Amino acid sequence: MLPPHVVILGCGFGGLWAAQGLARASVQVTVVDRANHHLFTPLLYQVATAGLSAPAIAGPIRHILARQKNTTVLLADATSIDPVARKVVLDDADVLHYDFLVVATGSTHSYFGNDAWAAHAPGLKTLEDAFDIRARILLAFERAEREEDPARRAAWLTFVVVGGGATGVELAGTLAEIARHTLPGEFRRFDPRNARVVLVEGTDRVLPPYPPSLSQRARAQLERLGVTVWLGRRVTGIDEGGVSLGNDRIEARTVLWAAGVASSPLGGSLGAPLDRAGRVLVAPDLSVPAHPEIFVAGDLAAVSTDGKPVPGIAPAAKQMGRHIARNILLALEKKPARPFRYRDWGQLATIGRSAAVAEMGPLRLSGFAAWLVWLVAHIYFLINFRNRVVVLIDWASSYFTYNRYARIVSRRVL
Amino acid sequence: MLPPHVVILGCGFGGLWAAQGLARASVQVTVVDRANHHLFTPLLYQVATAGLSAPAIAGPIRHILARQKNTTVLLADATSIDPVARKVVLDDADVLHYDFLVVATGSTHSYFGNDAWAAHAPGLKTLEDAFDIRARILLAFERAEREEDPARRAAWLTFVVVGGGATGVELAGTLAEIARHTLPGEFRRFDPRNARVVLVEGTDRVLPPYPPSLSQRARAQLERLGVTVWLGRRVTGIDEGGVSLGNDRIEARTVLWAAGVASSPLGGSLGAPLDRAGRVLVAPDLSVPAHPEIFVAGDLAAVSTDGKPVPGIAPAAKQMGRHIARNILLALEKKPARPFRYRDWGQLATIGRSAAVAEMGPLRLSGFAAWLVWLVAHIYFLINFRNRVVVLIDWASSYFTYNRYARIVSRRVL
Repeated sequence: MLPPHVVILGCGFGGLWAAQGLARASVQVTVVDRANHHLFTPLLYQVATAGLSAPAIAGPIRHILARQKNTTVLLADATSIDPVARKVVLDDADVLHYDFLVVATGSTHSYFGNDAWAAHAPGLKTLEDAFDIRARILLAFERAEREEDPARRAAWLTFVVVGGGATGVELAGTLAEIARHTLPGEFRRFDPRNARVVLVEGTDRVLPPYPPSLSQRARAQLERLGVTVWLGRRVTGIDEGGVSLGNDRIEARTVLWAAGVASSPLGGSLGAPLDRAGRVLVAPDLSVPAHPEIFVAGDLAAVSTDGKPVPGIAPAAKQMGRHIARNILLALEKKPARPFRYRDWGQLATIGRSAAVAEMGPLRLSGFAAWLVWLVAHIYFLINFRNRVVVLIDWASSYFTYNRYARIVSRRVL
Repeated sequence: MLPPHVVILGCGFGGLWAAQGLARASVQVTVVDRANHHLFTPLLYQVATAGLSAPAIAGPIRHILARQKNTTVLLADATSIDPVARKVVLDDADVLHYDFLVVATGSTHSYFGNDAWAAHAPGLKTLEDAFDIRARILLAFERAEREEDPARRAAWLTFVVVGGGATGVELAGTLAEIARHTLPGEFRRFDPRNARVVLVEGTDRVLPPYPPSLSQRARAQLERLGVTVWLGRRVTGIDEGGVSLGNDRIEARTVLWAAGVASSPLGGSLGAPLDRAGRVLVAPDLSVPAHPEIFVAGDLAAVSTDGKPVPGIAPAAKQMGRHIARNILLALEKKPARPFRYRDWGQLATIGRSAAVAEMGPLRLSGFAAWLVWLVAHIYFLINFRNRVVVLIDWASSYFTYNRYARIVSRRVL
């Protein structure tokens, strides 16, 4: 008899940790992802801002799982799930039958119904997104060097980041650093220090999930770097030339979207209730109601611990993936599944060189101390040794020189 | 009065060395390139085969030239040259007037009139080409893992490299290494060691510009790595499914083109005679006949030293660029230009780990000794320190583990 077949859709933090938790189990595992790599998303903004190369934060999934002999990796798109027939349909009409299914396909950008904004304001979820954003940023400065008209040049030198969460804060802070510290001296027709970076946030503070005192310190650090922070402002339009906010208008040729997140559409095919953001309302053991053989991990799962919703961040996804693997092992032993409890290690957001905020239990750090914690944590969690060494060299060199070595555009988008 | 304006088109080795040779001259320099980076082309095949990341071999041009205050860098396409009016037209109809012009726009692939082959057999000249080739190689193995039909799977696992010059030899050798040493253990449905790499060369030996004894040793090293070498065979057709050679046919989903080179079309607008390959037949001082203010450097220039044509390789382009800068300085002092003499340091081609051939004057090396010379030379010439360190780490780690850390596909091409 064949061992039970576990299909894992998506190999982000949730999917990868679930797969690794089944390494020694008597199951057959198939991991499906549309990219060939697991991505260390907390550093994706560094690829987008030319501080790191893509391979520094990405590892081939089949290499990571090569020694796990019970596991097959497929590069494929899962197009639909049939929870009754227990099968997944892939592109090219391939079908996978499963005994257990782990859905960990994450989330994508949401433009709140304004899909036309997507073309002008890319979000940051994948390596393709990061390359797109990198090209837009670098090419904006290049266009400014060729532009004679002052108003048009100013529009090329204006960058708007929409959304004041962790990604928005990281992008805005790094953009300001690039303009103030990396690029000066390289252009002949304008001073990059005059570039304008505007961070627009709809609520009344940046980093809304953090304690208000840290939000305030993050805002102060952003403003010290030269970022203009607009709070309580809603974007009402985005086009090729800029951003509209009610009666106000910012002429900007580069707009980045860090405001909205929508769940993977696969969540909808499980026959389970979804929350307003499209996340699957899972049972406490992370399974789907009425389908104890289907589990959901990571951003796609809506679950709470002690009444507090589990945040959509990497450590939470890892914990869920690991927990699901344990519950599958229990099911194989005909034992009942256990409820998931999120262990909160705190949260960290970086703003720029030596600037960050961190909340760990009762501890609240900002500035250089928080940045050091951030640096150590991120290097530690990068998943393989080579990456750690190279990332460290890149960071050390960019810390001391402000240079960003990955400033490479390989396509002329404009 | 404004200082004389020197316009340099193309910032490869020829253009960059010309620009740097004018750093302290009383001239105004404008460097135009369609990419934002100078590329260390001798290692481009490493990016194509996932051994190095793009930023490891590319540096932003304006960063390299930042301290050269007389120099402006423009990201632009030069669309035409008017040698009578002394002007260059850029995309967007911008016009540059020059007193001296350096044309160093290099070469591209030539399919010998079979342009339809281009879609199925990419060549390797730019970073985009390298990413395209990397994606095709990695995705071919991914497709093979999803393919059930043995014949179709075999076609995904067959790689044909057309052209047995340095690039073809490097690509074929590295492909065989990837199949034999990097990928085994990562696939469940086939053994990557069964992948087939065929190198097709039209003449009767690989590396035709080398002494026959080294060609023979290169061929033996390729065959030891597992490459099938077909000599004296001409490709008569390339389509999505494979390669035709007269009555023979190789079913292969991945074909790489390393056979033909065509000069940049800008050479044709100088009003100068061209050779059969489209290169500009320059005067001994590298200027264009009847236009002492126009110089041509690098692959685009046809010139001889002691009756031997100067080869289209990086050291020759550097020497030409440097020489042109000197001749411009002489012209500013109203002194006559000097003829160019190529100083031949020898030639080096790498085949795989510990496998290479080298010819330096009377010295002929092959195997590990040649590979060491190649390694030291290439690391030495990589233009900035950070790259040298990171490239060294990458190489050391891949030498000992055979892993290739840049195995990242960011798009699903297939």
